[in-house]
Amino acid sequence: MIFGITMGDSSGVGPEILLKAYRNGELGHKVAAFGDLAVLAHCNRLLGYDVALRAAASPADYQDGWLNVIDLGMLGVADLRIGQVSAASGAAARQYVVAATRAALNGEIAAMVTLPLNKEATGLSDPGFTGHTELIGALCGVSDVTIMLASDELIATHVSTHVSLGAAIERVTKDRVARIIQLTCDAVARLRPNPRIAVAGLNPHAGEHGLFGREEIEEIQPAIEWARAQGLPVEGPFPPDTVFYLAVRKKRFDAVVCMYHDQGHIPLKLLDFEGGVNVTLGLPIVRTSVDHGTAFDIAWQGVASTRSLVKALEFAAGLAAKP
Amino acid sequence: MIFGITMGDSSGVGPEILLKAYRNGELGHKVAAFGDLAVLAHCNRLLGYDVALRAAASPADYQDGWLNVIDLGMLGVADLRIGQVSAASGAAARQYVVAATRAALNGEIAAMVTLPLNKEATGLSDPGFTGHTELIGALCGVSDVTIMLASDELIATHVSTHVSLGAAIERVTKDRVARIIQLTCDAVARLRPNPRIAVAGLNPHAGEHGLFGREEIEEIQPAIEWARAQGLPVEGPFPPDTVFYLAVRKKRFDAVVCMYHDQGHIPLKLLDFEGGVNVTLGLPIVRTSVDHGTAFDIAWQGVASTRSLVKALEFAAGLAAKP
Repeated sequence: MIFGITMGDSSGVGPEILLKAYRNGELGHKVAAFGDLAVLAHCNRLLGYDVALRAAASPADYQDGWLNVIDLGMLGVADLRIGQVSAASGAAARQYVVAATRAALNGEIAAMVTLPLNKEATGLSDPGFTGHTELIGALCGVSDVTIMLASDELIATHVSTHVSLGAAIERVTKDRVARIIQLTCDAVARLRPNPRIAVAGLNPHAGEHGLFGREEIEEIQPAIEWARAQGLPVEGPFPPDTVFYLAVRKKRFDAVVCMYHDQGHIPLKLLDFEGGVNVTLGLPIVRTSVDHGTAFDIAWQGVASTRSLVKALEFAAGLAAKP
Repeated sequence: MIFGITMGDSSGVGPEILLKAYRNGELGHKVAAFGDLAVLAHCNRLLGYDVALRAAASPADYQDGWLNVIDLGMLGVADLRIGQVSAASGAAARQYVVAATRAALNGEIAAMVTLPLNKEATGLSDPGFTGHTELIGALCGVSDVTIMLASDELIATHVSTHVSLGAAIERVTKDRVARIIQLTCDAVARLRPNPRIAVAGLNPHAGEHGLFGREEIEEIQPAIEWARAQGLPVEGPFPPDTVFYLAVRKKRFDAVVCMYHDQGHIPLKLLDFEGGVNVTLGLPIVRTSVDHGTAFDIAWQGVASTRSLVKALEFAAGLAAKP
């Protein structure tokens, strides 16, 4: 199996993280990088990494002993604007994602892992661009995707992500909660033996029997009952301030289905700010992503951590292992 | 300074925690217990703690070398229903709180610390009873109080607590956020030198410049500007999934002003489930509480942890030290 890694925006930390992780022998899988060979070669020289780079015509053209690069020929060294928002870099970063997604859809790679792009930079040439996840979803022809945030200690999925908290409450419907439970169970079953999944409530104390909100009674509980009737290993709804303690400290659950973005992101980023992995659920392909941004302030200094990339590839391999 | 500790519901872990912490020499301050001497004496015998108990007529009647008990004479040994909801225990637990609150208002004790009561049990004789905090607020003649949740690692205050998430969003107004910032700064200034206070946003990514909600722009930011104009050491609004990392892991802040119950409760209970302390802000007296319940399932076995009580007394002493 060959895994595709997109290089990310060349102004940021993507190129160096890819090179550094390869040089350190941390990747542990056959990978093909989707990016610009000229940029990687320049970064490699500047940081003295001495990685053996080669242009591969396709993922099938993979050769051991090299970092194989699907060279999209978008940028030369003269185009580089390290640490700055650049229309050329943004457009190139988008192209790496398009190429990797197509390769995943064609079965040329087993999964794709994305390094960070800069929304503002990519938006300069694609004004409708809202992010990696939406672009990949559109290329795959699906719109209803969700984010699974994963670390070794905790896996969290989300009924909604980048919407206001008011709009997030509206998304807590039986149908949507049931769908996210199902996506969560499917994904976690590939990652953990005998998975146990908890569902969080929406309101404080999970509503305290309807006293502080009725979504638990009217939407979440029926979704859990439906899922249990399908044989899915799911329990809840639990008070949101207790469920992460039960999952992480008491090891009672492998994953928590969260009702909104911050319910899952707050505990996960507190536990492991650098090692988090972003998984897109609901796609016909396996896609994971590092859980950090382009970090323009430290780009091309060789100090960026490879941990999230290594973990993202590890989770991608786990998810790709079973059909 | 003498600190009052209420014994809590006699069916639960309150009496044994009080005795055990005293016996272990963990209290570190002069205390007067508000409770039933007969119950404490029975628990003391059953668990073999050998604590020297005496009835004190008032906190001023304190004597060293004893656990001084303001004996309210509500319950005898025959009234005990260990591990069960009991109307008599519930009514008695309420009475300990009333007596301690009056003693605090009269200046007989420097602060009050409450051990857990059972809402259902107390509700049997007082159907309008909704909790400790509301009862103490009513006795003090104030209704607008809020909860500060504190551990050694993190202090969190809340713009709202026991309301639905939908209602919590409605409470995020400039005036209310400003008031909670002020209460937070006043309290934290008594606990930490040169306090630094962060304010969390309400929406994911703190709204990403209005893209996912406008409360940050319209309500929270103006409240922060007002507070800074008063010279208060406050910054924000920060993305909710980053601010706890900054406060706890990067040590950049002593406290976080949270926009709703679970925003603060999720990280705090994940960090320290047993050692959390509940502080009521907005009262004319200092009141702290253990952050656990009556734990009927393990009551009177001597296994309950004294940590939260010890911390609650420590925070009470810190808050009472300055006027």
